[in-house]
Amino acid sequence: MTQLAALQNHQVRLAKRPVGMVKDSDWNFTNEPVSEPGEGEFVVKSLMLSLDPAMRGWMNEGKSYIAPVGIGEVMRAGGIGQVIASRHPRFPVGATVNASLGVQQYCKISAADGSDKSAALIDLALAPAPKWLNALGMPGMTAYFGLLDVGQPKKGETVVVSGAAGAVGQTVGQVARMMGCRVVGIAGGKAKCDFVVKELGFDACIDYKAESVRDGLKRSCPAGVDIYFDNVGGEILDAVLTRITRHARIVICGAISQYNNTSAVQGPANYLSLLVNRARMEGMVVFDYTARFPEAIAAIAGWMSEGKFHSREDIVDGIEVFPAALQKLFSGENFGKLILRVAND
Amino acid sequence: MTQLAALQNHQVRLAKRPVGMVKDSDWNFTNEPVSEPGEGEFVVKSLMLSLDPAMRGWMNEGKSYIAPVGIGEVMRAGGIGQVIASRHPRFPVGATVNASLGVQQYCKISAADGSDKSAALIDLALAPAPKWLNALGMPGMTAYFGLLDVGQPKKGETVVVSGAAGAVGQTVGQVARMMGCRVVGIAGGKAKCDFVVKELGFDACIDYKAESVRDGLKRSCPAGVDIYFDNVGGEILDAVLTRITRHARIVICGAISQYNNTSAVQGPANYLSLLVNRARMEGMVVFDYTARFPEAIAAIAGWMSEGKFHSREDIVDGIEVFPAALQKLFSGENFGKLILRVAND
Repeated sequence: MTQLAALQNHQVRLAKRPVGMVKDSDWNFTNEPVSEPGEGEFVVKSLMLSLDPAMRGWMNEGKSYIAPVGIGEVMRAGGIGQVIASRHPRFPVGATVNASLGVQQYCKISAADGSDKSAALIDLALAPAPKWLNALGMPGMTAYFGLLDVGQPKKGETVVVSGAAGAVGQTVGQVARMMGCRVVGIAGGKAKCDFVVKELGFDACIDYKAESVRDGLKRSCPAGVDIYFDNVGGEILDAVLTRITRHARIVICGAISQYNNTSAVQGPANYLSLLVNRARMEGMVVFDYTARFPEAIAAIAGWMSEGKFHSREDIVDGIEVFPAALQKLFSGENFGKLILRVAND
Repeated sequence: MTQLAALQNHQVRLAKRPVGMVKDSDWNFTNEPVSEPGEGEFVVKSLMLSLDPAMRGWMNEGKSYIAPVGIGEVMRAGGIGQVIASRHPRFPVGATVNASLGVQQYCKISAADGSDKSAALIDLALAPAPKWLNALGMPGMTAYFGLLDVGQPKKGETVVVSGAAGAVGQTVGQVARMMGCRVVGIAGGKAKCDFVVKELGFDACIDYKAESVRDGLKRSCPAGVDIYFDNVGGEILDAVLTRITRHARIVICGAISQYNNTSAVQGPANYLSLLVNRARMEGMVVFDYTARFPEAIAAIAGWMSEGKFHSREDIVDGIEVFPAALQKLFSGENFGKLILRVAND
């Protein structure tokens, strides 16, 4: 067994609530000794952490679908790690887990903890660790249930997804293709658009940096948009609203364009298109589907093993680059699911 | 039979597309002789016309759920009238009809006309004419199907409706009460709020002219808002969004606060509350439910005959006051369903 007493746990803590874009000074780096697990506890060594747009929301004060991270607390993050010490029979030393580990090198988890720290055993034989933070992790689960349960795609319908090369968008588009839909992505830059069309098999992708989304939709969705899976909000949401079909469904999954606003969120000025088109806009939170994750994991892992499903990760190394890496998400610099590698094994 | 040749048909036509609030100069008054009905046609003498917020939208150019009124055309309006000449077996002289009559004294209707001019026979023994333009007419049908089909109220839920003393709001609240819901109205001024609570039986009513809607909702809906039936849009929609419950439904029926805007519509800045609350915002258009109107009419007329259902109309006289009367709708001056009486019999 690892000598825990010899280990130092390097951590990233929230120093203050950011105003607008997150700054380096919003974080504190700390070191803590790692303590032995008590009865029913186990200690996980972080391997890879998931960096997500939702993190920006967790840094704000106020009621949301999850409590904010407190000032001085280790920043919340989901990740993959290995159990290195355990007094919990279900999580023996050597097991690999997917859990809310926080932005730190080691995390002690208690069986008595609530869902925020809940851990799931994962099988690296089914897919390598990065996939468990992408298509088989929260982004994939969000995409799968948001599209299927809220969007309710029917064969032959046109599905549009923003942030198409991002973690959620990749899976939304590919699952929609599996359902027999025509799929159009929206992404920033030629490289991302090419990836989405050539590697993921989307029917088309609109480069919002090269043309107006409205023009792109006219060309790519001549019969209109039946389902829009929205990860970005703002002007792109408004553009899509002008092209929806009767009884269209808009899945509100996120609004990355608005997360760093210092002024009010930009509401969709074209929302009355919902009235004209008898259409629906509905929000979703992935945690509601926890009990059904195995269903989605089985489906996506199955498609992966058949070579029909692809995913791309953007992996950066070292816990000390966390602040800079997080900013890449909001500038659109990352290409694929952003992952912070904390340790190699 | 009436001597048609002796009659002059006084009409109100759209002279130009209004910018912002409708002005007197946006209208033309014309006179036309009334011609004999051809085979399959009948002539209706207007008795009462329905004045509706939707009229403002019909005056704008551009695609909507219904074609805009053309420049130079008689303004579109639904109304109650009597058949005074007929070569159509289903609509004999003396019959009373509910039809798209236009803002004019006489209307010739052809059986070949599409839904825009479609006529329904109505029974004045069941309810007097004004009720057929209110609870048993388009506003009532809008309220009934918007609440029940889109809102899907469950017993014990809290339903909030804006424009509560208006044509649609009156019926929304009363039908919600019949379904066992707690009902809170939003209306402007003490008289309307008192009417809604004391005469219609709402549980509470927020006077948006006397206090902030947010404060009113905190007091009147301590457990939050399960269904919001929105007739007004703008700041009130945004205030309600801050108070919705998990899985709430927002029925988008109209946005009277935005219809006379010269700038862009104010989108709901708090729409991400839909995400946090896994809630839904959905538009509806009453014409989709035409085949089921008899179901709603039977239900509401039944409640009326039992004395459990009330409605209030605001009746103004004379076709020449149409321009001024329409403006009352947007200033909130009308109290109850606004009706223009064109003739007494």
